[in-house]
Amino acid sequence: MTQGIARLEPVRERISRDLHELAEIREPDHLGWTRRVFSEPYRLAREWVTARMRDAGLEVRRDGAGNLVGVLPGRSPAAPALITGSHTDTVQGGGRFDGIVGVLGAIEVARLLRESGRQLDRDLVVVDFLGEESNDWRLSCLGSRALAGELTRADLDRQDGTGAALGGQFAAFGIDPSAALGEDWLRRRPVHGYVELHVEQGPVLEQRGAAIGVVTAIAGIERLLATFRGQADHAGTRPMGDRRDALVAAAEAVLAVERTGCGAPVHGVATASEAANVRAAPNVVPELIELRAEMRSVDTGWLGTARERLAGDIIAAAQARGVDVSLDWITDNEVVQASKPIQDVIAEEAGAAGIAWEAVPSGATHDAVHMARWCPMGMIFVPSKGGRSHCPEEATGLGDIVHGVRLLAATMCSLDARP
Amino acid sequence: MTQGIARLEPVRERISRDLHELAEIREPDHLGWTRRVFSEPYRLAREWVTARMRDAGLEVRRDGAGNLVGVLPGRSPAAPALITGSHTDTVQGGGRFDGIVGVLGAIEVARLLRESGRQLDRDLVVVDFLGEESNDWRLSCLGSRALAGELTRADLDRQDGTGAALGGQFAAFGIDPSAALGEDWLRRRPVHGYVELHVEQGPVLEQRGAAIGVVTAIAGIERLLATFRGQADHAGTRPMGDRRDALVAAAEAVLAVERTGCGAPVHGVATASEAANVRAAPNVVPELIELRAEMRSVDTGWLGTARERLAGDIIAAAQARGVDVSLDWITDNEVVQASKPIQDVIAEEAGAAGIAWEAVPSGATHDAVHMARWCPMGMIFVPSKGGRSHCPEEATGLGDIVHGVRLLAATMCSLDARP
Repeated sequence: MTQGIARLEPVRERISRDLHELAEIREPDHLGWTRRVFSEPYRLAREWVTARMRDAGLEVRRDGAGNLVGVLPGRSPAAPALITGSHTDTVQGGGRFDGIVGVLGAIEVARLLRESGRQLDRDLVVVDFLGEESNDWRLSCLGSRALAGELTRADLDRQDGTGAALGGQFAAFGIDPSAALGEDWLRRRPVHGYVELHVEQGPVLEQRGAAIGVVTAIAGIERLLATFRGQADHAGTRPMGDRRDALVAAAEAVLAVERTGCGAPVHGVATASEAANVRAAPNVVPELIELRAEMRSVDTGWLGTARERLAGDIIAAAQARGVDVSLDWITDNEVVQASKPIQDVIAEEAGAAGIAWEAVPSGATHDAVHMARWCPMGMIFVPSKGGRSHCPEEATGLGDIVHGVRLLAATMCSLDARP
Repeated sequence: MTQGIARLEPVRERISRDLHELAEIREPDHLGWTRRVFSEPYRLAREWVTARMRDAGLEVRRDGAGNLVGVLPGRSPAAPALITGSHTDTVQGGGRFDGIVGVLGAIEVARLLRESGRQLDRDLVVVDFLGEESNDWRLSCLGSRALAGELTRADLDRQDGTGAALGGQFAAFGIDPSAALGEDWLRRRPVHGYVELHVEQGPVLEQRGAAIGVVTAIAGIERLLATFRGQADHAGTRPMGDRRDALVAAAEAVLAVERTGCGAPVHGVATASEAANVRAAPNVVPELIELRAEMRSVDTGWLGTARERLAGDIIAAAQARGVDVSLDWITDNEVVQASKPIQDVIAEEAGAAGIAWEAVPSGATHDAVHMARWCPMGMIFVPSKGGRSHCPEEATGLGDIVHGVRLLAATMCSLDARP
């Protein structure tokens, strides 16, 4: 338990002002608070973040992967560093809190440390990771992926809908693609641990009346592309009993995905996001449907058996209608466990501060997934109103954010003191 | 029964050559035999049809609506005319027979009459109707619709996906939009009857071993646009029991549409053609789904009750999942009865020629739907192999086509003699 908790009290008005100022830097032609990676508002927002980092006394640099990095020097520059942060990009039509609370909260912790005159033993490294949200190249967590050494040449060759490669977009944004694949100063540092403050993006904390979530693990994701091939016939002349309707087979699959999710253990979910008719015409029996779905859970065993069971259900329903189906699965993320010692520190500090907390898994992916490959990882969740996220209605009360920042500060101080 | 049947024997090789030549005039960049209305191949194909009409001794003109019209003068120019024909446009990725058989068959009938030295009492009017298939303006049967006086100013103001108006497309194709709405020489003619030769586009004749279908009625079509509004949530964090998933509600509706069709009387069908996620993203619970479906039957009473029952099923399934749904129905075509006297003539002539025939309803829409508003209407179907249509595999045996042309010739001769 850290003795300094009482002294590091976040300044509510300062956090509120930061949230409002950053929210104003956005793409005006899109719904909500839209600030997509590589957009001009994203570039401007990072200039704003750089200025806030400098105001807080951080030494600011970009690493080779385009992450914005502010360092608050500790007493022992050679000691393994503490890292905290998140991201400031948003989805299209997104909100003002996802990722942003973690970056602004980390900067506030640095300010509190400096104002209190308290210097940590270790360097405190605050990171605004490059492009965490999914993008036109269908690759999320660009910056943390690179930092963990998981960005590949093939990733940089990915093309968006216009044929533009991701690597070219890096270059246009001032990031040398080769450097993004390489190992630079930040990646060569020894690291003590990584803690990310983030909004929950789900309704569990609110429903349980908890102010803080101590993340136990981050869900693995199994993504499915199911391609249904039936037969295109005239929709007015082909009798019902003589059809091979790909959309009907896909509809059965959508319901099978839902059943799979409903049968999952706590926080397991399954979602069909799209059943696109590739050659839709009003008077043609659907021939070719592409269904996209995903399953998430922190239980690797369940993911495996559920995947097999779902595949069987989809194939059986399609065969009953004479429809061929091919299933392409991708394991997008494996289940990632949070560091047990860091979970314990967060829980202890929350208890000491009298903050009600719950141990919860994370259904969403975060930069922490990739950081966990590199160093011990922990996450602190604050509640999302109504569980809404990735939409303009996304909201977290200022009081909850202050709780989260207070706990992040206490956690960093506590981890600093541990060997 | 017409005494002249034996003398009007279609020339098999000539029909085969015409089919092959016309099939070669197509859009090279698309699958199958694609010749969409207003395309350059469509313009060239109609020049080819004009030449074939002139070769057959027809006086060729275009009417105000862009229909290609060839007249074989009869002995009594003032007598109500006989009209036959169909269309030469295709759907994208379509076949070589839909519509085409009716136009080439009509030209062959004119050739046979002229070669036999037999002049009808009435003018024989052969029409290649403008754009029968659905197009980017979602309006089918352009030419027959105009000829029946059913084309409206609002129709010409319809826009395609690029914002281009249908009226402008008429003008670019050399058709004065005002003339298409007006009444010209052809529309002022008294008409004795209209008979259209067409491929069945379904499997019924083949399954029953019949060479000819005598069409009893053309199905009415009820089209549905169902808009499902749920709630966009993070697909990884929103628990299954707390979702309002629009795609799941739409999947239930797809299955309800299928059930409705399976419960229909003979030749009633129901088809969901699309369940489009307007803002699809892999990690978002679907919020807005647009489902398009249609029901067809020649039983108006069933269409009405089935529509109510289906609406109830869709709404109940959506409500059970907290999803709002709005249903927009359009009666695209009302049920159209074929003329009983013309049906009788076709059946008698088939019997006299020893051709096995069946009375069948038409599930597909045809130019005949609109012609029926103007004059007594009949249709002759020839079998479609495997019932396939609107696809490259669409096929009708040459022998079946010859049967159809022979019967069309006999029917026109018989009708010519009737008061």
